[in-house]
Amino acid sequence: MTKITILAGGVGGARFTRGLLAHLRTADPSASVTVVANTGDDLWLAGLRVCPDLDSIMYTLGGANDDERGWGRKGESERVSAELTAYGVGWPWFTLGDLDLGTHIARSAWLREGLPLSEATARLSARWNLGVTLLPATDDEVETIVTVAADGEEASVAEDMHFEEWWVRLHASRPALAFTQRNVATSRPAPGVLEAIADADVVMLAPSNPVVSIGTVLGIPGIADAVRSTPAPVVGVSPIIGGGVVRGMADACLSAIGVETSALAVAEHYGSRRDGGLIDAWLVDEVDADAVAVLEAGGIRSIARPLWFNSVEETGAIAAAALALADVRHSGG
Amino acid sequence: MTKITILAGGVGGARFTRGLLAHLRTADPSASVTVVANTGDDLWLAGLRVCPDLDSIMYTLGGANDDERGWGRKGESERVSAELTAYGVGWPWFTLGDLDLGTHIARSAWLREGLPLSEATARLSARWNLGVTLLPATDDEVETIVTVAADGEEASVAEDMHFEEWWVRLHASRPALAFTQRNVATSRPAPGVLEAIADADVVMLAPSNPVVSIGTVLGIPGIADAVRSTPAPVVGVSPIIGGGVVRGMADACLSAIGVETSALAVAEHYGSRRDGGLIDAWLVDEVDADAVAVLEAGGIRSIARPLWFNSVEETGAIAAAALALADVRHSGG
Repeated sequence: MTKITILAGGVGGARFTRGLLAHLRTADPSASVTVVANTGDDLWLAGLRVCPDLDSIMYTLGGANDDERGWGRKGESERVSAELTAYGVGWPWFTLGDLDLGTHIARSAWLREGLPLSEATARLSARWNLGVTLLPATDDEVETIVTVAADGEEASVAEDMHFEEWWVRLHASRPALAFTQRNVATSRPAPGVLEAIADADVVMLAPSNPVVSIGTVLGIPGIADAVRSTPAPVVGVSPIIGGGVVRGMADACLSAIGVETSALAVAEHYGSRRDGGLIDAWLVDEVDADAVAVLEAGGIRSIARPLWFNSVEETGAIAAAALALADVRHSGG
Repeated sequence: MTKITILAGGVGGARFTRGLLAHLRTADPSASVTVVANTGDDLWLAGLRVCPDLDSIMYTLGGANDDERGWGRKGESERVSAELTAYGVGWPWFTLGDLDLGTHIARSAWLREGLPLSEATARLSARWNLGVTLLPATDDEVETIVTVAADGEEASVAEDMHFEEWWVRLHASRPALAFTQRNVATSRPAPGVLEAIADADVVMLAPSNPVVSIGTVLGIPGIADAVRSTPAPVVGVSPIIGGGVVRGMADACLSAIGVETSALAVAEHYGSRRDGGLIDAWLVDEVDADAVAVLEAGGIRSIARPLWFNSVEETGAIAAAALALADVRHSGG
């Protein structure tokens, strides 16, 4: 039984995993997949714990995602949110859908009963038959804070804000100077996370934001070391194609940490495991084929192939290519 | 300016107050009304603080009540509740409407920020232009617990349950042996409650459940004494007509405390202020006209007149009759 562990952010991680599962359904039906999801975007809003990445993965794999909009529940409505706005509660620019609120209310109730996030996530996931084990990277509240540059108008000095405020309200329009994970130093990986990395047959980095998604997961003490030391090959899929991001605004995050927005630069940011880094292999798009030789020379196996995933089938083919690049020979069937 | 203070439960108290306001609009536009509402039905459900009586009053006076159903918001939907049920959270028999949930989420968020219930209630009320000052009887959590008799089938021994479970799930079908207000001994009236009673020109007991609505309000230390000692006349409107309840299941509550379900018995339960009781005057329905002479002999002024309130106008006329019986001469205009 092939054991696959994916480190993932929200929408990109969810779609990548859905494609992988579609591929495995015929290629390796007995494979087991664990997704370790970023929790840095999580926040308390209107007294409810919102976990955007966990929920994107849950809804997408559960068949409940709004694929047209790209996030949230399909058939969503926003009646409760309008009430909250009328009462002046929450962020008017951060809409919580009615169906989505059911998830937040259930999770918050369980958290307040004392359940760790990982158990609340397991309870929520049980409804959806995800086909994966979905783990939060940590049960601790590790929220990403963005230090945003002064803009001369709205703010004359740099200021800190929750990642979601910078991302959703400001659309990353003001430059980020730094990303900080609040309380990360004392955080611990959620139960099962280190084991899922250590015991895997392959570890995959989904094409998610290298800074605030994958980077946040790797920032939790112990996780990066587990990736460095796992006997499994570690393969990543570039979230950057031809110098632009596949989705989201990763470029605004990469520049804050001094990394160029390119498939090559992100791979070099992760670094080759041969030299104490995190990856053995890196999948780039055809337009970034020039990077392959550079990466191979640097100890990172690489191939170039189409990386845009418009359909589940295309995404499955990308996942299959990543598994092949990691030299994973399916053991199931 | 006539100052009127009403002790009230939910639906009955809300409708009575709405009628009173309609009457005052022409009779005494400068009158000010304070409603002291029962909080014994309140509960934490799915991590949210639900206050059925406060909300019935707020929605009814705010014009947002579902008058056909009698409670909750008009145009209500139940999408979130269906999600909670799918996750196994909350009580499937206690549906929280989507619009209603906006209120609960806002209130719960404020309570968790440290606001007392009275301030959260003021914030919620501000949206609705109620035309009254709405006060919870107490900021403390004083929940009514029902000791329910064994029924030989479902339960072989008596058991305690939250009032809402007995009322909504069991429809009061199993006899109540006793009502207890959890933590009532250490509870205090909410800010403004005692002043509203002491400074009133008239205190009114709405035609609400004498045990679990008005009784719960009066059970909070200090409130009954304030009613006994206020210089204002205290007038009540019977919630019992011809031996039956106007609405709800007050008979199931009255029998538990050994009070007959009659307009007379409820008045005698409250008692004449002349003899250390709580009321000076008591309005009964025409069918209970026999009680008038008995009440008058016992020191309680009384008249009989139609007490069914189907329309706002009819209810206004009842409120006007109660004010007249209390000998309140409108000072405004």
